[in-house]
Parts: sequence; structure tokens; C-alpha cells
Amino acid sequence: MSAKKLLILPGDGIGPEVMREVARVTAWLSRKRGITFDVSEDLVGGASLAEYGTPIREEVIQKAREADAVLFGSVGDPKWNSVGFDKRPELAILKLRQELGLFANLRPAKVFDALVDASTLKPEVVKGLDIMIVRESTGGIYFGDPRGIETLPNGEKRGINTEVYATHEIERVGRVAFEMARKRQNSVCSVEKHNVMESGLLWKEVITDLHAREYSDVTLTHMLADNCAMQLVRNPRQFDVIVTGNLFGDILSDLASMLTGSLGMLPSATLGAKKSDGRMPALYEPIHGSAPDIAGKGIANPIAQILSLAMLLRYSFDLETEATMIENAVSAVLATGLRTADIMSEGKARVGTDVMGEAIVREL
Amino acid sequence: MSAKKLLILPGDGIGPEVMREVARVTAWLSRKRGITFDVSEDLVGGASLAEYGTPIREEVIQKAREADAVLFGSVGDPKWNSVGFDKRPELAILKLRQELGLFANLRPAKVFDALVDASTLKPEVVKGLDIMIVRESTGGIYFGDPRGIETLPNGEKRGINTEVYATHEIERVGRVAFEMARKRQNSVCSVEKHNVMESGLLWKEVITDLHAREYSDVTLTHMLADNCAMQLVRNPRQFDVIVTGNLFGDILSDLASMLTGSLGMLPSATLGAKKSDGRMPALYEPIHGSAPDIAGKGIANPIAQILSLAMLLRYSFDLETEATMIENAVSAVLATGLRTADIMSEGKARVGTDVMGEAIVREL
Ligand SMILES: CC(C)[C@H](C(=O)O)[C@@H](O)C(=O)O
Ligand SMILES: CC(C)[C@H](C(=O)O)[C@@H](O)C(=O)O
Repeated sequence: MSAKKLLILPGDGIGPEVMREVARVTAWLSRKRGITFDVSEDLVGGASLAEYGTPIREEVIQKAREADAVLFGSVGDPKWNSVGFDKRPELAILKLRQELGLFANLRPAKVFDALVDASTLKPEVVKGLDIMIVRESTGGIYFGDPRGIETLPNGEKRGINTEVYATHEIERVGRVAFEMARKRQNSVCSVEKHNVMESGLLWKEVITDLHAREYSDVTLTHMLADNCAMQLVRNPRQFDVIVTGNLFGDILSDLASMLTGSLGMLPSATLGAKKSDGRMPALYEPIHGSAPDIAGKGIANPIAQILSLAMLLRYSFDLETEATMIENAVSAVLATGLRTADIMSEGKARVGTDVMGEAIVREL
Repeated sequence: MSAKKLLILPGDGIGPEVMREVARVTAWLSRKRGITFDVSEDLVGGASLAEYGTPIREEVIQKAREADAVLFGSVGDPKWNSVGFDKRPELAILKLRQELGLFANLRPAKVFDALVDASTLKPEVVKGLDIMIVRESTGGIYFGDPRGIETLPNGEKRGINTEVYATHEIERVGRVAFEMARKRQNSVCSVEKHNVMESGLLWKEVITDLHAREYSDVTLTHMLADNCAMQLVRNPRQFDVIVTGNLFGDILSDLASMLTGSLGMLPSATLGAKKSDGRMPALYEPIHGSAPDIAGKGIANPIAQILSLAMLLRYSFDLETEATMIENAVSAVLATGLRTADIMSEGKARVGTDVMGEAIVREL
């Protein structure tokens, strides 16, 4: 078997420094577990803008297509705030999602026991929280046409975007959610606004049909997006898997993440459809941003990036054992009291990016 | 001066019973403050569907147009769950918003000191919370064309909705937000997704220009909708006034409400533009729904409906004194320990809808 191709895209801000800690973990994988990757690295986001004048080159997209998995850091840099809409750093991730067909964005929101107090919510509300949001990520209003800003004869401008969802787009992401639920608590909550949007009405219909046809063993509920936002605050543990469209998913998954109080801990995966050769396009990234304010200071939390690698091992390479080992090592290190600045609390030991990375590998 | 015309639309579920407590307060207004209204009442929502086969009659919309203010209860009844998209009870409120031009939905999220423990968030995070969300409510994806569900030749369906925002729509709701801020903490946060939506890009541009031209004394910040959802959980007290579009406003205002832990306490107002005769179309309603599960049991919390009347007095009739009196009476009654079931906590006295209403009027 030829070595698995891994494309690493550290991006901007703290991206490169947290990615360095991932290198320690891949070194361990090769040294102790005999798992090696054919790794290449490239620029995206502001870093690519600075070098090549574009947030992502066609060449990098091609490399991503050929890779077995992409490990992404984060993009965004205030330097590029006033660059045009067609050059913003975010395009790097949007283009990768669309060009690779990465339609299912998996966003776990999990509360680590050691960090239950980091949440702004009461411990009794979030202890043990473990939600998986499955967000559609190549469709909806992010990509629909017509779109743009037009100027009317009277000088007025109109900004336009279009939400479009087709049966097959809803079905395939629904399938991911139901499959995921079967491995978890067997329950899916489908979220839309069918009371005001026909695209939501179709969403609800398609999910309902799919459930009846293929997944009637899974519990399915439906919820309006506004109510879901409320329920995530009121009683988040009522949820197992949530499946929703691109825009609602963007908001609700960030909301769910914040319930944990520790964004620096949360990874994500974005998956495409299995190809005929058995390969599945996949990208893994921490949910936190590039945090330009703390970049280069060596204080960023590398855990979300390391846990993104764990997800990568699990979903792209079926290396469940190694994925779990890494996750357990993270929990163990937290239990010893080591904390980066973002998750620091009284009586714990504050450490930098590299000490945290080192400690996790030592634990492994 | 002819008596002010008030149209009362109790709607479904607990609507009628909480509205009965409002009648006590209007009786007090007339008896003790010499303020009388020319009140008429009509059916909307499921109640109207049952009687007339439509969630709102043209006649009722006309009455609402002629009224000086509309006091709305809530609509929605599981009985009508499977009625068509063009008959759902929600159309009552959507049509009123659109036909009366009620473009600015004001959604206060305020934590009452006596109820700080009702929140699922830690008291130190929400104590004193006082946010005003100004949500655009006659535009955006709720009303844009094209919309609908189409069937493609291959049998696939596509659900379509269109988000459209024009300069003047953004400007007028922006103006409401800036004016509101001047009477509060003088700070506005404008929320959109300019990084993925051109309608959000225009939103940001128009608000920025309006601010520079007319409101540079107010502090203006911009935030992406996903980040706003996070910040509302992380540190909600950073916000004073939030201004945003219809769909984001729907979700974020419900999220903000839930931070208070007591939906049964929160009123809302939806305002239109002042007409040449000085009249301003306006509708007031509690943010809670029709709560069919507890309807008819006499246990619903009437406070949100009563506080909606207070908002009505303030915004439609400039009766600031009476509005404040009612708000203070509510706080005072809570301080004595009376609680309806929804806000009940240990050591307090649990009362029904009517006892709560009575107590507030007695306090007045
Ligand atoms: C970077 C940005 C375009 C993106 C989005 O809005 O989808 C981000 O918020 C996310 O959730 O991955
Ligand atoms: C009743 C419904 C159509 C409405 C909406 O989605 O706008 C409600 O949720 C609201 O916020 O007033």
C-alpha cells in the first residue's frame, strides 16, 4: 500500500504554530504506530494572498483533490479586511468545499469533564454535553444564483442571494446524519424554517421521506431554526445529531461550540461522497479562527488542531484506535492540570503551545 | 382628541387567557389615569382558520391599518400543522408585518433581577443583561422572489428562496437602531454575513454610510452572524443595540431571549414608518408562542403580554409614565415572590394567570 497523501494547509494567524504541534503527533504515529504519510504543505488565505495575490491557487485545489485528506489550519487576517469580495481569505475554504464536493460539515460540540467550568452555562446544564451538528456545506444561500449587488436606475442598490436546495443535496447530507446517529444516541433533529421558507419545507419533506424509507430505526424530530437556537441554550443535552442547511448550520454550530466554553478544543471535519475508487474527499480543521491578536506569541491552544488530526485518522483512514488514543491523551493531559491561556482557570498550570503539544505526545 | 383605536388580536392557545389580564390593566388605565381606548377585537391564526378558513381576513388587516396600535397575542395550533403553506397560522403575523409596513421588530432581552437564576447561564454572565435587538421584518428571505418548490424534468425537486435587501430598507431599520441606541448605551452592533453573502456586504456598507452621515456620535461595530451567536453566549453584556436582517434577527433574538431564562416575561414591538398624519403603524406581542400544551389551564404567565401593552403605551402613545409604572409594578410583584409555573423556583409562591394579573393591577 502506497503511503497516504496528506495535504497540510496551515493558513494564517495561529494556523502555522498550532500545526507545528500536529507534526509532533504525526512523528509519533510513524515512530510508534508505523503509520506514515506522504505529507505536502502549501499556502492558503492571507498567506497565499501575500505571495500569489489569490487566497487559493488552482494548483492547491488540484493537490487537495489528489490528497487522501486535507488538514487545514485557519484563514483570515485583518490586513486583508478591505480586499474585494472575490479575494477575501475565506474563499480558500469556500472553494475547497465546493471544488472537492465537501458537502457534509461535521461539527462536534463536546464538553470535556475537566473543562466543564469553562462554559458560561451552568455546569449542570452542559456537563457531558455531546452534540454532533451535520451541516450541509456546498449548497444553500452560500452558493446559490442569482447573487450580487445591482444598482437600480434611481441609484438605489440591491443585494441579492439565493437559497436553493435540491432533493439530492438534502438526501445525501441527511444520510450522513442518520448514519452518524446510529453510531451515537440514534437520534436526529432536522432544523429548518419551513414556516417561512419553501426551501425549508422541501428540506423537511425530503428528510421525512428518507427517514421513513431507510432509517426508521433512528428517532427523528424536526425543529425550527429559531427554536433550535433557544433549545441549545435552554437544554442542549436534548440533542444528539442535528442536521441542517449551510447558513443555519453556520450559526447553530458556532452557538453549540460556545456552549462548551472552549473553542480551542473543538475540531471539525468536512466530507464528500466516496468515489468509485473508494477514496472520500475530506478536510479537517479546528473550528477556531486564525486569532491574529495572539498569533506568533506561542500561547495558542493546539488541541483543536490535534483533535482535527484525530478525526482525520478516524474518518479518512479508519484508524479508530489511534484516533481514540489521541483523544484520550488530550483528556489525560487536561486532567493533570495543564492549560493554555484560553482555557486557564485558577489553580491550573498555564503553558504555551509547545509545552501542551509536547505533553500530549509524552502522554501518548 | 378622539379615543385611540386599539385592535386586540388574542389568537390561539394561551393568547386569549393572557389577553384577559391585559384587560385589567386597561381598566386601571381608564379608571385611574383617565386613558381610554376605543377597543375592538378579532380572530387570527388557528382561531380564524376554524371560523373563516383563513389565518387572517382582509377585513382584519384593514382594521389593523385603521387602528392606532395592534396588540397581538400569539398564533399557532398543532391542529393546523398539516394545513398548506398558504394557510398556516403564521401567515397572520407575516401578512400584518408586510401589509402594514411593520419593518422594525424590536426585541428586548432583559434579565429581571428577581429572575436572574432562571437563566441556564451563570448569574455573573447575565445579571443586568439588557439588549435590544432591532430586526428588519418586512424584507430579506422571508419575502423575496423568486420562491417556491419546483419539480425538474428528472423528478427532482428544488426549494428556492431569495434574500433581497435594498438600500432604503437597510437604511430605515438602521435609523431605528441608531435612534434607539441614543436613548440607551449609545452603541450599535450591525450583524450580517458579508463574508459569504452580497446582501450582507451591502447591509454593512449602507449601515456604515448611514452612521458616518448621521450618527457618528453612536459607537458602531460590525459582527458576523455566526460570531454574534457565539458572543451572545460568551459575553452577552457586551451588546447594547443589535441591528440585523429578518432571518438572522429571528434566530439571534430568540437566542438572546433564552439567555434570560424567562420567555414568559418578554414583550416585543414591530413598528412601521410615521405617516404624513403622524400616525405610526405598530404591533405589540409577547415573544412566547401560543403554548398549546398549557392553554386553557389558567397557568400561563401573562407578564409578557402585559409588558407588550407597556411598550405600546411608550412607543405608540408616548405614555412613558404609564409604561414605566406598569414595568415597575411587574418588578415589584416579582420581588414579593409571586411566580407563574414557567418562572417558578424554590421558596416562591406559585400562582395562576389571573392571580398574577390581579397582583400587578393591585400593585399599580
Ligand atoms: C470562513 C467562513 C466562510 C465560514 C462560513 O461562514 O461557513 C466559517 O464561518 C465556517 O463556519 O466554516
Ligand atoms: C411566526 C413566525 C413566522 C415568526 C418568524 O419566523 O418571524 C416568529 O418566529 C417570530 O420571530 O416572530
